[in-house]
Amino acid sequence: MTDEATAFAKGRRSGKGEASAALLLKAAGELLAERKSLDISLLDIAKRSGLNSALIKYYFGSKDGLLLALIERDASQAMSELDFLVHARLSAERKMKIHISGIINSYFRAPYLNRLLHYLMGDGDSAAARQIADFFVMPLIEAQRAILKQGEEEGAFRSCDPQLFYFSLVGSCDLIFQATSSLRHVLGLSGVTDDLRQRYITHVTDLCLSGLMVTPRD
Amino acid sequence: MTDEATAFAKGRRSGKGEASAALLLKAAGELLAERKSLDISLLDIAKRSGLNSALIKYYFGSKDGLLLALIERDASQAMSELDFLVHARLSAERKMKIHISGIINSYFRAPYLNRLLHYLMGDGDSAAARQIADFFVMPLIEAQRAILKQGEEEGAFRSCDPQLFYFSLVGSCDLIFQATSSLRHVLGLSGVTDDLRQRYITHVTDLCLSGLMVTPRD
Repeated sequence: MTDEATAFAKGRRSGKGEASAALLLKAAGELLAERKSLDISLLDIAKRSGLNSALIKYYFGSKDGLLLALIERDASQAMSELDFLVHARLSAERKMKIHISGIINSYFRAPYLNRLLHYLMGDGDSAAARQIADFFVMPLIEAQRAILKQGEEEGAFRSCDPQLFYFSLVGSCDLIFQATSSLRHVLGLSGVTDDLRQRYITHVTDLCLSGLMVTPRD
Repeated sequence: MTDEATAFAKGRRSGKGEASAALLLKAAGELLAERKSLDISLLDIAKRSGLNSALIKYYFGSKDGLLLALIERDASQAMSELDFLVHARLSAERKMKIHISGIINSYFRAPYLNRLLHYLMGDGDSAAARQIADFFVMPLIEAQRAILKQGEEEGAFRSCDPQLFYFSLVGSCDLIFQATSSLRHVLGLSGVTDDLRQRYITHVTDLCLSGLMVTPRD
């Protein structure tokens, strides 16, 4: 995605266009969730939304512009919840548990999120990659840094590098949604079911918290 | 990749063709490592190897056949080392530490491995995906299951579901090599350096072992 496309896409979404732009995003999100791939066309999106495909170019500049806006839509709510969590009057242990559930639940609600992030970030040298780093990756790391620091100050957590922690925790939450092939062969499932989601939250939370905490939890 | 292509590719690599096939794999591995993408052509591979591109079709059926053979080449040594480790006279804690280093070092040595696995496995409904599950994913899970079981029997590890453990541990090791964009924005690096590799091994090992072990390690 070019810098121009990103700037273009951001400029158009204001005022009376909001409703149509939201309809197009809703349609794209539904199609991505149903198809389990990023292989959707502008025509598919237009057809599902009941709007003209020319509006996609008008509001978002391109299909990539629309996909980026979709990530922004999905991430913005999660990020404001995360900000609220970081400032809540809870122990670091409780915050980290809620945060881990939050990551796994986000992937579960938007199964395309993962694929889309990897696709749009690519090797990191594009305007889209910089935007995603700014509104998604960096705020996540800062939130985790704050929770880890609180845990250390409470005497509950061991010292832990927040940058490395980001890759290890998000990687733990990410792969099960990405490796659909392994999931099929290992667990005989074509996707993460609600039961597996709950078991996986318990598994990652137990392992991560036991790993972080100074004293045994049992 | 079709079933026919897989069968075809496997049938040709025997006898005197071994040396040429190995040269083609070496050339493909070098190009993938240099370019940080899967975007290499049959002509590139032929040119680097000094052999005719028709030999790729002859030995491997297609570019995907060659990529699958490359994973098999890289995985086979790692898998025999893993088998040796599982049967070694070491504590489960020591085995798990060596195993985690082994996964991260494998990704470090073959930076394309990760991308290639995700690409060839796709959504899991191909001959290539089944083969990779058979020679890579399932043996990994079985090895981890054996180490986790030994750790429980030694009274050192908490009970842990080996299938869920696979996704969480491999995900932890995987993302830092895959998310080159985040790595660039978070750590200012264009790839995993040797220093980062060592720090990351320590980080994942500490977090995972502390998470698994019944008693605190310090």
